[in-house]
Amino acid sequence: MNYNSNYIGKLTEELGRLPGIGSKSAARLAYHIINMPMDQVKNLTDTITQAREKVCLCSECFNLTDREVCPVCADTERDHRQIMVVENPRDLAAYEKTGKYKGVYHVLHGAISPMLGIGPADIKLKELIKRLEGDVDELIIATNSSLEGEATAMYISKLVKPTGIKVSRIATGVPVGGDLEYIDEVTLSRALDGRVTL
Amino acid sequence: MNYNSNYIGKLTEELGRLPGIGSKSAARLAYHIINMPMDQVKNLTDTITQAREKVCLCSECFNLTDREVCPVCADTERDHRQIMVVENPRDLAAYEKTGKYKGVYHVLHGAISPMLGIGPADIKLKELIKRLEGDVDELIIATNSSLEGEATAMYISKLVKPTGIKVSRIATGVPVGGDLEYIDEVTLSRALDGRVTL
Repeated sequence: MNYNSNYIGKLTEELGRLPGIGSKSAARLAYHIINMPMDQVKNLTDTITQAREKVCLCSECFNLTDREVCPVCADTERDHRQIMVVENPRDLAAYEKTGKYKGVYHVLHGAISPMLGIGPADIKLKELIKRLEGDVDELIIATNSSLEGEATAMYISKLVKPTGIKVSRIATGVPVGGDLEYIDEVTLSRALDGRVTL
Repeated sequence: MNYNSNYIGKLTEELGRLPGIGSKSAARLAYHIINMPMDQVKNLTDTITQAREKVCLCSECFNLTDREVCPVCADTERDHRQIMVVENPRDLAAYEKTGKYKGVYHVLHGAISPMLGIGPADIKLKELIKRLEGDVDELIIATNSSLEGEATAMYISKLVKPTGIKVSRIATGVPVGGDLEYIDEVTLSRALDGRVTL
C-alpha cells in the first residue's frame, strides 16, 4: 500500500540501483534528500550531471579526465618510459595515493574473463600494444590479484616479452598490518615464494 | 595531487556528505555514475529533484506526501480516533509495512533532547495537542526506545493524561528471533516486567 508519496518510492528505487546501496540504505538516503535544503539538492544533482558530462577518457592512458590528456600523462616530470597497467581508474587512484610511483599508467578498463565473456579485444589491450611501439623501458603489471587479474597479467606478459621490453608484476604477499592467522593459504605460500633476503 | 578530474573529486565529496556513505563508498559511487549511460544519470537526477520539489508534509499528521493530505489520513476506512505518535516518517513506514495498524499517525519530526537543544516547541507537539481537541479515543506513543524517545513519551503522556484520552506505549521486550544471550540487561528486565500471562 502507498502510505506516503510515489516520488519517495521512485527515489528509493533509483538509489537502490547504485552499487553497495541496499533497500534500507536507499530509503534512508531518500528521506535524507527530501529533508535537505533545496540548494544542496540542486548542488548534488548538478555535480552528478556535470561529472557525467565532462569526464571522458585520457587519449593516452584511458584514465578518467576532463581534458584531452589526463594530468598524469600531461606531467613532464614523470617517467613516460615506465608504464603501469591497471584494471580501472580506481586502481590508478589507489597507486597515486601512495605518492611513490613516478611513471605513467595504462588503464585497461577490465580484465580478461572467459566466464563473463570478456576477451582481450574487450579491454584496452590493442591500445597498450600500440603505446609500446614508442619509447618504453618497463611495463609494470598491476592488475588485481584475482583469477581474472592474474590471467590478464599472464596474457600481457606473453604478448610483450618478445618485444624485449622489461615486464614486471607487483608483489603478492602478506599485506602490511596483516595478521598471519587470518590470511589465506595461497597468499601465505606466495609470500614464502617471494621472500626477500634481508 | 590531482590525477584525474576535479569533477570526480567534487562528485565524491558531494556523495560523501550523504548519511552512511564513507569516502571509499563515495568514490565507488562516483566512478559508477561516470560509467552509467547518460539517460540513467538524467533519470537519477530528475528523480532526486522531483522528490525534493514535490514532497511536502501532510497537513494533518505531518507524514511525507505529495498531496495536501497523505494517503493514510485520506483513507476513510482507517480509524481516525486512534492516533499513533512516531518520531519520523521512516518509523511510520516501518509500522505501515506490518499492515497491522489501522489507525492514523502523528509524525513529531524529532524527539525531545536537551542534549541536542531540542525542546517540546521544536517538534510537532502543539499540532498533536490541537488534534486531540477533536474526536480521539487512544493515543499510542511509538517513539523510539532510546533516551530521547522515552523522555518524549513521558512528556506527551503527562500532557495528555489530564484530558482523559487513553494513552498507551508500544511494548519493550525481546525482539522476535532475538537470541537472549546477546540482548542487553535493560531490555531483558523490561521484558520480564512486561511479561504476559499465557
